Amino acid sequence: MDIIYMDNNATTRVAPEVLDAMLPYLKDFYGNASSMHSFGGSVGREIAAAREKVAALINADPGEIIFTSCGTESDSTAINAAIRSNPEKKHIITTRVEHPAIKNMYEYLAKNGYRVTWVPVDKEGVLDLGYLYSHLSEDTAIVSVMWANNESGVIFPINEIAEKLRNKGIVFHSDAVQAVGKLPVDVKQTGLDMLSISGHKIHAPKGIGALYVKKGTKFSPFMIGGHQEKNRRGGTENVASIIGLGRAGELANNHLEEMNSRVRAMRDRLESGLLQNIPKALLNGKKDERLPNTSNISFEYIEGEAILLMMDQLGICASSGSACTSGSLEPSHVMRAMGVPFTAAHGSIRFSLSTYNTEKEVEFVVENLPQIIDRLRKMSPFWKEGACNLQ
Amino acid sequence: MDIIYMDNNATTRVAPEVLDAMLPYLKDFYGNASSMHSFGGSVGREIAAAREKVAALINADPGEIIFTSCGTESDSTAINAAIRSNPEKKHIITTRVEHPAIKNMYEYLAKNGYRVTWVPVDKEGVLDLGYLYSHLSEDTAIVSVMWANNESGVIFPINEIAEKLRNKGIVFHSDAVQAVGKLPVDVKQTGLDMLSISGHKIHAPKGIGALYVKKGTKFSPFMIGGHQEKNRRGGTENVASIIGLGRAGELANNHLEEMNSRVRAMRDRLESGLLQNIPKALLNGKKDERLPNTSNISFEYIEGEAILLMMDQLGICASSGSACTSGSLEPSHVMRAMGVPFTAAHGSIRFSLSTYNTEKEVEFVVENLPQIIDRLRKMSPFWKEGACNLQ
Repeated sequence: MDIIYMDNNATTRVAPEVLDAMLPYLKDFYGNASSMHSFGGSVGREIAAAREKVAALINADPGEIIFTSCGTESDSTAINAAIRSNPEKKHIITTRVEHPAIKNMYEYLAKNGYRVTWVPVDKEGVLDLGYLYSHLSEDTAIVSVMWANNESGVIFPINEIAEKLRNKGIVFHSDAVQAVGKLPVDVKQTGLDMLSISGHKIHAPKGIGALYVKKGTKFSPFMIGGHQEKNRRGGTENVASIIGLGRAGELANNHLEEMNSRVRAMRDRLESGLLQNIPKALLNGKKDERLPNTSNISFEYIEGEAILLMMDQLGICASSGSACTSGSLEPSHVMRAMGVPFTAAHGSIRFSLSTYNTEKEVEFVVENLPQIIDRLRKMSPFWKEGACNLQ
Repeated sequence: MDIIYMDNNATTRVAPEVLDAMLPYLKDFYGNASSMHSFGGSVGREIAAAREKVAALINADPGEIIFTSCGTESDSTAINAAIRSNPEKKHIITTRVEHPAIKNMYEYLAKNGYRVTWVPVDKEGVLDLGYLYSHLSEDTAIVSVMWANNESGVIFPINEIAEKLRNKGIVFHSDAVQAVGKLPVDVKQTGLDMLSISGHKIHAPKGIGALYVKKGTKFSPFMIGGHQEKNRRGGTENVASIIGLGRAGELANNHLEEMNSRVRAMRDRLESGLLQNIPKALLNGKKDERLPNTSNISFEYIEGEAILLMMDQLGICASSGSACTSGSLEPSHVMRAMGVPFTAAHGSIRFSLSTYNTEKEVEFVVENLPQIIDRLRKMSPFWKEGACNLQ
């Protein structure tokens, strides 16, 4: 059975060009970049080239890019640097809809001497900027706002927030793992201090990430060890994956237009096809401020997990809530923060496309999902009741 | 030019069997292990199988293995868990010859409220156990002793230390990245609490590691994020590399005998050949308590870097000092802790073999190195002076 993969906000296919770029470093050129011998030392040049490519993707200088093992490590590194560099400050601002990499880290800090302000979103997932700005204080060490939400796809106004925070002595960090490769991201223009990138969200392999740290930003390493990454991240360089991330960065740059034209059109067709053909289907997230690849739709009165299982039988891959929190049957914290009603939050499905998706795949989903929803609703006691109530 | 790679303590070739095991997960099976759909979920089973293989390598239970991004992360995770779980204890014991992943982390803690005891070694690199034991106290949170030293190859008596620490309420952690795959390591028999493993030291790729945490040991995550690794390490699982580490663990188990027979014999031949044919060559490290693959030899009155460069021209790869500290011309902290005289420490070369080395390669080095040393000494003002003094 062919797989129709619409779960690209969870993880992406490794681009064949990326794997091709990596393979020599998984086969013949296995040296340690820190070596004195040319066999190892030569891979250092390839790492430098990869750094330039990742920098180019977000308009950074290569020296502002630190390679990490994943988006989570990039986030932890940013937060750790901000609080260690400003030990007297004990206040943090973030949003209620951050990825667990941010959310759980700040919850940990909230139990360990920090005061954390959680900025709410409205029912369309739009951030309450007034709330954010009104909580800024002399004591604020860091503001972390994701560039775009992984579940709703809603884009946050990072440029505007950066403008507001300028010259306030507050570190502004954005977890941009969902934005990079889908939206133009220009750190120089935006002027934020730190920005997290994850490789496996942009067709590089899992296990590689990057952190942008603006030149001049006070820094303290999270992964303490050897001298790698100019003493900013210990641990032998993951040569093959770094080179893979460099190639993926180039490809993402090249595909940005396609992402915002062809992929966006497929997403719009998927969304309108499902919303038109399925009763009691609701779009989660503000329609015109979303990632071009993401559609989060609630099918009321049924369980997202049941929908996923039935789609799975047709080879369709998507997510309910956040892939990272699956295993729990609670609606995700994002859906709850948006105030999506219980009956809808449970039946929310996130479709997230990539340039590898085809129009034919979209039509297949539009054709087949209505029957799945109909079958599940016929089995649901809530649906009968809800349908009655809502007639 | 063929490469003669004798720098396996720095990093190793990815075994072709390991790459073969990884490739399906870098190509077709790119799903997120946390997914609800079977495409992603199925990789979870392969991760479980890899965990069993890594556990088998050190005789652990699979649930005691946490996958990390590298040996450095494993070390940081162990240390972080020990101090967060025992916040009232402010004393740490480690050795003067640890890898920078341990050394720099403890130096950081020493500046942040911890008292660190650095246990010395003698001129053969043997640990002063009396010193270690005499510094144990009620306040000791963690003792970190590497299983074998990366530079000298000297093996530390981990079983004996574990026995001494039993039931003392002190976390005993060992950075075993150089021991695993070269020596039998049995965590159940030894009874230590935590043990660090690095993939790229045992023919898995760079960017993957593991931490053994004995069942019942108090734990607190270092990489805070999603629910992965049973809430012990956030971040999307690095599926391909985890599977690669599993395969590498199997291979290391299978090759342990060869490592301690054929590789040891090659190392002994290399060592005796060089010591016999080159005047003023000294073995660093106790002869009979060393890793079977490692030989660290000082060639007095010349620079290790110069030796490496001339060996490089013949395709021979080795290290001077620690590969992790190259870039600095200071003798390594290990050589200094052993009290290797300045004139010898500067000219120390570490040869570290693997099962991929051949007897022919060893003979090539034994034949060619004497001329290199001779040429360099003829250019060295120190050599003339030293030779005179020592006649």
